[in-house]
Amino acid sequence: MSAAFDPATSKLHEECQQLAQRAKSASWQAGLISSASKDRWLNLLADTILSKTPAILEANRKDLQQESAQYLTAALRERLRFDEKRIAEAAQGIRQVAALPDPVRQIISGQTRPNGLQIRKIRVPLGVIFFLYESRPNVTLDAAALCVKSGNAVILRGGKEAQHTNRVLGELIRESLKSCGISEEVVQLVQTTDRQAVDILLKMPEQIDLVIPRGGEGLIRKVTETTRIPVLKHFLGNCHVYVHESADLEMAERIVVNAKCQRPSVCNAMESLLVDRAIAPDFLPRIDKALTERGVELRACEVSQTYLKKSLLANESDFAAEFCDLILSIKTVCSFDEAISHINRYGSHHTDAIVTSELKAAQRFQREIDSAAVVVNASTRFNDGFELGLGAEIGISTDKLHARGPCGLEELTSYKYLVIGEGHVRE
Amino acid sequence: MSAAFDPATSKLHEECQQLAQRAKSASWQAGLISSASKDRWLNLLADTILSKTPAILEANRKDLQQESAQYLTAALRERLRFDEKRIAEAAQGIRQVAALPDPVRQIISGQTRPNGLQIRKIRVPLGVIFFLYESRPNVTLDAAALCVKSGNAVILRGGKEAQHTNRVLGELIRESLKSCGISEEVVQLVQTTDRQAVDILLKMPEQIDLVIPRGGEGLIRKVTETTRIPVLKHFLGNCHVYVHESADLEMAERIVVNAKCQRPSVCNAMESLLVDRAIAPDFLPRIDKALTERGVELRACEVSQTYLKKSLLANESDFAAEFCDLILSIKTVCSFDEAISHINRYGSHHTDAIVTSELKAAQRFQREIDSAAVVVNASTRFNDGFELGLGAEIGISTDKLHARGPCGLEELTSYKYLVIGEGHVRE
Repeated sequence: MSAAFDPATSKLHEECQQLAQRAKSASWQAGLISSASKDRWLNLLADTILSKTPAILEANRKDLQQESAQYLTAALRERLRFDEKRIAEAAQGIRQVAALPDPVRQIISGQTRPNGLQIRKIRVPLGVIFFLYESRPNVTLDAAALCVKSGNAVILRGGKEAQHTNRVLGELIRESLKSCGISEEVVQLVQTTDRQAVDILLKMPEQIDLVIPRGGEGLIRKVTETTRIPVLKHFLGNCHVYVHESADLEMAERIVVNAKCQRPSVCNAMESLLVDRAIAPDFLPRIDKALTERGVELRACEVSQTYLKKSLLANESDFAAEFCDLILSIKTVCSFDEAISHINRYGSHHTDAIVTSELKAAQRFQREIDSAAVVVNASTRFNDGFELGLGAEIGISTDKLHARGPCGLEELTSYKYLVIGEGHVRE
Repeated sequence: MSAAFDPATSKLHEECQQLAQRAKSASWQAGLISSASKDRWLNLLADTILSKTPAILEANRKDLQQESAQYLTAALRERLRFDEKRIAEAAQGIRQVAALPDPVRQIISGQTRPNGLQIRKIRVPLGVIFFLYESRPNVTLDAAALCVKSGNAVILRGGKEAQHTNRVLGELIRESLKSCGISEEVVQLVQTTDRQAVDILLKMPEQIDLVIPRGGEGLIRKVTETTRIPVLKHFLGNCHVYVHESADLEMAERIVVNAKCQRPSVCNAMESLLVDRAIAPDFLPRIDKALTERGVELRACEVSQTYLKKSLLANESDFAAEFCDLILSIKTVCSFDEAISHINRYGSHHTDAIVTSELKAAQRFQREIDSAAVVVNASTRFNDGFELGLGAEIGISTDKLHARGPCGLEELTSYKYLVIGEGHVRE
C-alpha cells in the first residue's frame, strides 16, 4: 500500500471527478438549449423561490443558528441573512436575466471574402464554469441564472456558513430545470463542506473552463495561485475621485459624498480623494463637514490636514487600501501629472473619476487612466452592469484579459468562426 | 551569506527586472503614440530591413554556421534560414500591418443611458507582452510590428539558434523607432541566451500582462505550468475533414488533398479524415490514389483498410496525433453522431471541416463542433488571419478565453469603459 494512499481523500477525489464529468457532459447540451426553454426555466425558478419562501427561510434560520455562525462578524451575518424582501429581489433579478437577449449564437461580425468564402464570427458558451463564493445565498441563484442563460454548465460551491440555504436553493434550481425538460446536470452543487474538494476541482483543467471566485481578496489570491484553469478575478476596488482645479465644487461635493457614502462596502465605492492644491483651501473644509457629518473617518496627507478639522495622518498603506467602510484617504496634489501617476500607482484599475469643467482635463484623464471604468463628472458607483446598460452581472473584473469591468452574459461566452465555401481550396 | 545566494543568478535577476521595468514604463507611452507615427515607423522599418539586407544575411549565416546549428534537423535549419526572398516577404508583411486600422481607442460600443449618462466602450492596449519564440527570425519583426501597432510594449525572446539574426533585427527595430521619435524602449530584446532569464521573466506578473509562447507543444506546456501571467496558447491543430454521405466526391477529394498536402507542416492542415460508411467504398479508393501519389502515408481503421491498397492500422494515438507531416489517419464512421463525438474527443478544437450537400448536416456540424473554426465545403487551411479577412496574426489560439482562432491586432488589446456625466450620483 502506497504511503500516499488515503481512502477518504481518494473517495472525495472520485466524487469530485464524477461531479466535474457530469458538468462537462451536460455542458454539451447546455449550449444547445433554446432561448425559449432557458427563459421559461428562469421564470419558473423565480416563481418557485417565491412559492417556496417558507422552506428557504427555514433553511436560512438553520444557517444563522449553526454554532459556527456565532463567530461571524455582524456584517457577515447580515450578508448571510435571506429574508422575504431579499428573496423577492432575487426573483426579480432572475426575471431580469430572462428578459436579456440570449448571447448564444449571436453573430458578432461577418463578411464575404473576395473569393466568395462566407465568414461569420458567432458567440458560443465557454463550457463549464466553477463558481466559488461566500456568504450571500442569492449568489447561488444569480450564478445559476447567468451561467445557464449563457449556455454553460456550472459547478456551484458556496460557503459552509450558508450550506442549508444553498442546499435548498440548489434543489429548487435542479427541480425547476427538470420540469422544463432541461437536464438538471447543467447545475452541479458541491455538497460536501470539505475544503479539499475545492483544491481537487481546481486541478481539473480538462473538465473546467473557467473559475470565478467571488469573495475576499484572500480567496481570489489563493485560487489564482492554486489553479492552471483561467480565473476571472474581481478584486475589490481602490477607486479614486480626483477633484480638478476647474471643478464645480458643489458638483464635486455631491459626487464625493455619493461615491463614499451611498454604499461604502462595495467595490465601486470611492476609497481615495485627490484634490488640486489650488482649490484645497476651498474644497477640503467643505467636504470635511459633509463627510464627518456622515461618520466618515478621514486619513489625509500633511498638506490636506491643514484644511481639515479632524483627520489622521495618512500613511503609504492608506493610499493603497480598500477600506470597504466609512474611511477615506485624502491627498492634495500639485499637478495633473501627480494625480494621474498616483492613481495608476496606488489604484486597483477598477473605477476612477475626475470632476472637472475643462474638456482637455476630462479627455486627458480618460486617455491616461488605466482602469476598467474612467468616469467624468459622475460617481464611481455607476460602474456596474445595470448602470452601464449591460444587464445583470456576476462581478466586476479587474483583469485586462478576456473581460474587464462588469461581467454579464456576454463575458461568460467565447466565440467561433463559421466558414462556408463551395469547394474552396487554398492555392 | 544565505545558502541560496548565487551572484550570477542574482545579477541575471536584476537585469531581467530592469528590462521588464523599462518595458512597463514604455508601455504607458506605447498606448498614446498616434496612428500616424506608428505607421510611419512600420514603413520605415520595412525600408530599413530591405536596405540592410546584406547585414541581415551575414548575421543569418553566422547562426547557420554556429556549432550547435549542425545538430538541427533539416526542417529546423530551413526555418532558421533568412534569405532575400524571405526578407522581402517580411517587409511586405510589415507594410500590411501599417495598412491595417489602428485598434487603439476604437469605439466598440456606446450608449446614452435613460439618466443621460454617456457610456463608451473603447479598445485599449494590454500593456507589456512577453513573446517567446523559436527559430524563424521573421517572427521578431512580426511580433514587434503587431505589438507596437496595437499600442503595447513587447519583450522579445527568440531562440538561441537565431541569436545573431535576431540581434541585428532588434537593433534595426530600435533604431527605426528612435528615428521616428518613438521611445525604443517599447521593444525590449532579451540578449542573454541563458534559459534562466525566461523563468525569471515568467515570474513577473506585475510587469508583464500577457505571455505568448510560439513554438512546439513542449514550450507552450512548460510556459503554462511555470507562470501565473495569462498565456495565449496556440497549440498545433489536430484538424479533421468529415466527408458526409451526401458529399460531392469530386469536391471532397479536392478539399482533402488541399487540406493535407498544400502545406502539411502547419497547424491548420488536416491530420484526420472521417468518411461515412455509405460512401467509403466509392470515396476511399479514390482518395487512396490521390494521396499516395502525393506521398501521404495512410493510417486507417480496420473498416477503412478494406478499401485502401496500402495502409497501416491506425491506433488510438494516431487519431489524437498532430503529424505536421505527410501522414493521415482515416476512420470510417457509421453515423453523424459518431463523427461529431470523434472530433470533439480526439480533435484539438482548432479547425474542422465537413463536406456535404445537405443543409441540415452543415448546420448541425457547425452547431455541435466545438472548434475555433468550423468549416463547410472548404479546406481547413482557410483558418488564418488573412484568409478570414482579419489581417496579420501572431498565431491561432486554441484557447476559449480572451481570444480564439487567429490572433491579430484586436486580440492584442483589452478595453475600458468611458463614462461621462453632468454631476450624476446614484440614488
